[in-house]
Amino acid sequence: MNAQNITIKQFQKLISERYEATDRARGTPKTFLWFIEEVGELATALNGNDRANLREEFADVFAWLCTLANINDVDLTEALAEKYLQEGASKQPK
Amino acid sequence: MNAQNITIKQFQKLISERYEATDRARGTPKTFLWFIEEVGELATALNGNDRANLREEFADVFAWLCTLANINDVDLTEALAEKYLQEGASKQPK
Repeated sequence: MNAQNITIKQFQKLISERYEATDRARGTPKTFLWFIEEVGELATALNGNDRANLREEFADVFAWLCTLANINDVDLTEALAEKYLQEGASKQPK
Repeated sequence: MNAQNITIKQFQKLISERYEATDRARGTPKTFLWFIEEVGELATALNGNDRANLREEFADVFAWLCTLANINDVDLTEALAEKYLQEGASKQPK
């Protein structure tokens, strides 16, 4: 796998292979708490000047979003395709 | 672009091309408020039974995370590579 060209599908699968069993056992509500903890750390990093920490917090929020999607049987690529990759999607607001 | 094989880099660039000028003008604090609004909508969707809405809210949180990364000059692929795609990364906790 070329890290620079990793697809959303590949990364979501990697998070699944590495963590999904534990994540499913924890369940969505507790996993959401972990996700929000990382969102809080991202807010702290956005307020600071540590670029390496900022990159890490973006990565962690991204990974936990993948986890939440995995344990809720959501394929992020399909979700993004439906909302953002259709013909004419560029005219939609986010 | 094949939507099913879209890379993280391609999607972040698409969000940049579509929204970054507006997003930069808004700035990080106000953009974070929008991001959190979407996180709240994801929480609501996780509590509900509407699968299409759940997919949409995952897509929106993902897109707004890309926006926050764009206006803070963070390449999500590089951030993920540093934290999750290194040799031995599988032994790290999230």
